[in-house]
Amino acid sequence: MNLLALAGGVGGAKLAHGLAQILPPENLTVIVNTGDDFEHLGLRISPDLDTVCYTLAGLANPDTGWGRADETWNAMANLKRLGAPDWFNLGDRDLATHLERTRRLNAGQTLSQVTRDFCAAWGVKHTVLPMSDDPVRTMVDTDEGELPFQEYFVHRHCEPRVKSFRFEGLSTASPAAGVREAVESADAIIICPSNPWVSIDPILAVLHLSSFISRLSVIAVSPIIAGKTVKGPAAKMFAELGIEPSALAVADHYENLLTGIVVDSLDSELAKQIRIPTLVTNTIMQTVEDRARLAHETLQFIGSLP
Amino acid sequence: MNLLALAGGVGGAKLAHGLAQILPPENLTVIVNTGDDFEHLGLRISPDLDTVCYTLAGLANPDTGWGRADETWNAMANLKRLGAPDWFNLGDRDLATHLERTRRLNAGQTLSQVTRDFCAAWGVKHTVLPMSDDPVRTMVDTDEGELPFQEYFVHRHCEPRVKSFRFEGLSTASPAAGVREAVESADAIIICPSNPWVSIDPILAVLHLSSFISRLSVIAVSPIIAGKTVKGPAAKMFAELGIEPSALAVADHYENLLTGIVVDSLDSELAKQIRIPTLVTNTIMQTVEDRARLAHETLQFIGSLP
Repeated sequence: MNLLALAGGVGGAKLAHGLAQILPPENLTVIVNTGDDFEHLGLRISPDLDTVCYTLAGLANPDTGWGRADETWNAMANLKRLGAPDWFNLGDRDLATHLERTRRLNAGQTLSQVTRDFCAAWGVKHTVLPMSDDPVRTMVDTDEGELPFQEYFVHRHCEPRVKSFRFEGLSTASPAAGVREAVESADAIIICPSNPWVSIDPILAVLHLSSFISRLSVIAVSPIIAGKTVKGPAAKMFAELGIEPSALAVADHYENLLTGIVVDSLDSELAKQIRIPTLVTNTIMQTVEDRARLAHETLQFIGSLP
Repeated sequence: MNLLALAGGVGGAKLAHGLAQILPPENLTVIVNTGDDFEHLGLRISPDLDTVCYTLAGLANPDTGWGRADETWNAMANLKRLGAPDWFNLGDRDLATHLERTRRLNAGQTLSQVTRDFCAAWGVKHTVLPMSDDPVRTMVDTDEGELPFQEYFVHRHCEPRVKSFRFEGLSTASPAAGVREAVESADAIIICPSNPWVSIDPILAVLHLSSFISRLSVIAVSPIIAGKTVKGPAAKMFAELGIEPSALAVADHYENLLTGIVVDSLDSELAKQIRIPTLVTNTIMQTVEDRARLAHETLQFIGSLP
């Protein structure tokens, strides 16, 4: 079975890592959101791509969910001393990724080429693809005006109330090299427990899945557990957009796309209201083993679907 | 007495530091070569400026002569892992300087503005000025063709034989903001023991000292000691250009400019052949005290000149 996983940051990276523990490289492709990519200090930064790649490579910082393990912060401390913008933390090891990606992109390489080479250097054997090689920039309309995503997410700690999202460049963005082929050869798609609004929606918009939907199983793992998220602002966004945050809301969000959904055991009562096949299990991935277990159960669930 | 020091890298930085230990900030301006500036990994790097500023700030690496003390190399190690060009070493603390300088220059600040702000942040009280805010790029013509300076100096370890030098942009480069005023208010100029060919000549060409020369004392400290340099390729360059490297050759090099010259005690015999006032003393600066002592003796020598 060829599997496509759609992933944003931490939650997506964890489930992708679980799947990578089970599936051989030729059977798993991870397509990653690039809508929260941005330019900072002259560097081209792709936070979700890095989180997914670092996690698959075993290089991720297990405490923060972003950045590198065993990181040092000497460049950042000296940037602060020089008065540089310091709201986005860049570790010394992590900086190398951004410097070399920036150098290569400026030299004309595509983001998917850079990602392929970086994965090879890091020993990531499964295929990781950015959703697009074209720039897509998530803009968050808030009660304080429109903010670029990282400005909202990191600089403002998701404090402003969300009114809507706009994805600059999305309507003209093509799927990255390899993405279309990966969709065509896929038997099932897993929508990882990432933010539906700002991580998964941009990927879905680029993929144009509608023509494939009849022959594909599409399963989402709900990022909302008992009305909350493990990390990130998805629940807050649902609420601010007037929707009660819940696994049910996630199912509704992906409405016509889903063959099934995986929800947490804490939502077993709520699950009865969901009108598509639902797997109820522990979806919180605290350990590396949790990731593999959830991946395994999700694959079994897909196999059980008609 | 207002003093102007002209400096390249390590040797120049050491004597500038000696002078800064003696002279109050309002009486010393250091004008630094920018002819070996270059772009690398998308960063704007000014090696001589950084060496001078780090040295004056007490941040310099005492072992290498370039870069920062207590440096870490985590970005560099990861750049190598990703296949980035690795012939120019950039420490993690040092990287902050290049990142923030690049950001500011790209935002429209001049190199002299950036240098002033960095010096303030680092606690450098004496004025350090780049020779020019306009780009000047030293090109070294060698028996293997023309090479950009850092390519020759760092990547090729000064191995190719030198035939001549070309300073791209020099003919149209203006003195940086503050340089002209510093020259006008100077009573004396010390040409630090830096490379005459690639560190001092570009500064002199930008300064156009000829109209000031009648009222100024100009004293050089020879970078050639017993036919050799403490560091750097100056002696090798003299030899490859058909000139026997010596303090005498240095005096001849600056010919019509010098009021006097300081040469090392190892060259006391040779000094008798120099036809301008000559101070013979120990010019090797191994300790911070050596720097102050040589600066003190040089200032006394200037005071003794007619």
